[in-house]
Amino acid sequence: MTYQRTIHFSDTDAAGVVYFAVLLSICHEAYENALQVGGMDLNTFFTSSDIALPIVHADIDFYQPLFCGDRIQINLTSTQLNDTEFKINYQVFNENNLEKLIAKATTKHVSINPKIRQRTPLPLSIIQWLQYHLDDC
Amino acid sequence: MTYQRTIHFSDTDAAGVVYFAVLLSICHEAYENALQVGGMDLNTFFTSSDIALPIVHADIDFYQPLFCGDRIQINLTSTQLNDTEFKINYQVFNENNLEKLIAKATTKHVSINPKIRQRTPLPLSIIQWLQYHLDDC
Amino acid sequence: MTYQRTIHFSDTDAAGVVYFAVLLSICHEAYENALQVGGMDLNTFFTSSDIALPIVHADIDFYQPLFCGDRIQINLTSTQLNDTEFKINYQVFNENNLEKLIAKATTKHVSINPKIRQRTPLPLSIIQWLQYHLDDC
Amino acid sequence: MTYQRTIHFSDTDAAGVVYFAVLLSICHEAYENALQVGGMDLNTFFTSSDIALPIVHADIDFYQPLFCGDRIQINLTSTQLNDTEFKINYQVFNENNLEKLIAKATTKHVSINPKIRQRTPLPLSIIQWLQYHLDDC
Repeated sequence: MTYQRTIHFSDTDAAGVVYFAVLLSICHEAYENALQVGGMDLNTFFTSSDIALPIVHADIDFYQPLFCGDRIQINLTSTQLNDTEFKINYQVFNENNLEKLIAKATTKHVSINPKIRQRTPLPLSIIQWLQYHLDDC
Repeated sequence: MTYQRTIHFSDTDAAGVVYFAVLLSICHEAYENALQVGGMDLNTFFTSSDIALPIVHADIDFYQPLFCGDRIQINLTSTQLNDTEFKINYQVFNENNLEKLIAKATTKHVSINPKIRQRTPLPLSIIQWLQYHLDDC
Repeated sequence: MTYQRTIHFSDTDAAGVVYFAVLLSICHEAYENALQVGGMDLNTFFTSSDIALPIVHADIDFYQPLFCGDRIQINLTSTQLNDTEFKINYQVFNENNLEKLIAKATTKHVSINPKIRQRTPLPLSIIQWLQYHLDDC
Repeated sequence: MTYQRTIHFSDTDAAGVVYFAVLLSICHEAYENALQVGGMDLNTFFTSSDIALPIVHADIDFYQPLFCGDRIQINLTSTQLNDTEFKINYQVFNENNLEKLIAKATTKHVSINPKIRQRTPLPLSIIQWLQYHLDDC
């Protein structure tokens, strides 16, 4: 699954490049896009009182700076880790050069019941979605 | 009511100054601070399913740029407009020079029932809070 | 000129809708997009040491809430006010209903020399760009 | 070195808690605060054309959710890794319970010449600042 995006002025900081934490946020957009393409209703997905999939870990490595107006492409792949956890990997490229990695990131998600904030098995719809993006990589 | 704050790196953009929309967000922090000082529980306040006070209008005028590390002070005053609406005015100063306005902003809020998104009278707690900050100005 | 965009999870707040100041930021994306379509290099445009076009005023009116996953369309038009100032108007619609306004906003920009922060005439490239989007409206 | 902060409404998302990438941004505020307390001028620090200390890696682990209005404390410690790299560790607590970790994060920084984006030795002022926060931990 790929996601394309232009770097906005609001993404940048006074050093003239994309602010580090913003790129994780842009990676999350790629995840949202993949959910939406997979048929999920995003508002229901993120505000459900039955199931939530909060991020318990995130990491990112930066290899090149990004500037306002740059066009990027994010390639996303997924791995189910066990019956309550999955991981998303993101590779960020400049759209004009898909050989040279700009950044790579990971988010790890846990399935919980948000009312009691206890772990609960991943819903079938997510397990199927994860398999689809696994095949995709 | 006054609120003090340092300008963070994440508030800035590639032009080297605070990104315009961020300053409205910082004004909203002054409003949150005044609510909290007034005894409101912010999480309950903003996520209540009985009453919501969404912003229906905001405006801001900029007179001076702000840079990372600048210390600002925001003076906040309030006006109840009618039984469902109120307005907050914000004056932004550099902490070192309370004579020279850096920016001024307004937010206008309407009291609604969030379940049906229809207007409902302002709660008494808010009316009292508004009066307090009116006296304060 | 129109700009289309999906509402991201990071655009929302704990009230479940788009955070008010974020919608001004999304309007600015429409402005950036129109500049880029008009042939401007955004990074050069926003970081030039010869000319800057900072926002001196912004306002926004909200008529409907926006939720994560909503697809919006922004229609942008421009007006040159005098030889150093211009205004951009933004109309925000849900992509599925271009009859019903969700929000409208304005940003007013002044042409300055960023080294001395004094007014300077709008560059010809911007005057031409403004005329193009005027015709567009 | 410790940094205290209230969670703002703009830090939250439609799931009702702090948006994951925002907490990294709040950790960076703790770093900025420690630099400022150490006598650095933040604007000069982040916009210098001679030296830049961009983040090349960041990671974060989340143990508890944070809500609007929560008061947090971040404990920051530093490690110089070699003559061009250092690492900052952040521990995030609820101000009311300094026993129970809410999140922990790391940022890794590299000293570069921003004009050519090549590595350059860490400036003495930073080496001294790093030692101070090492002693502090």
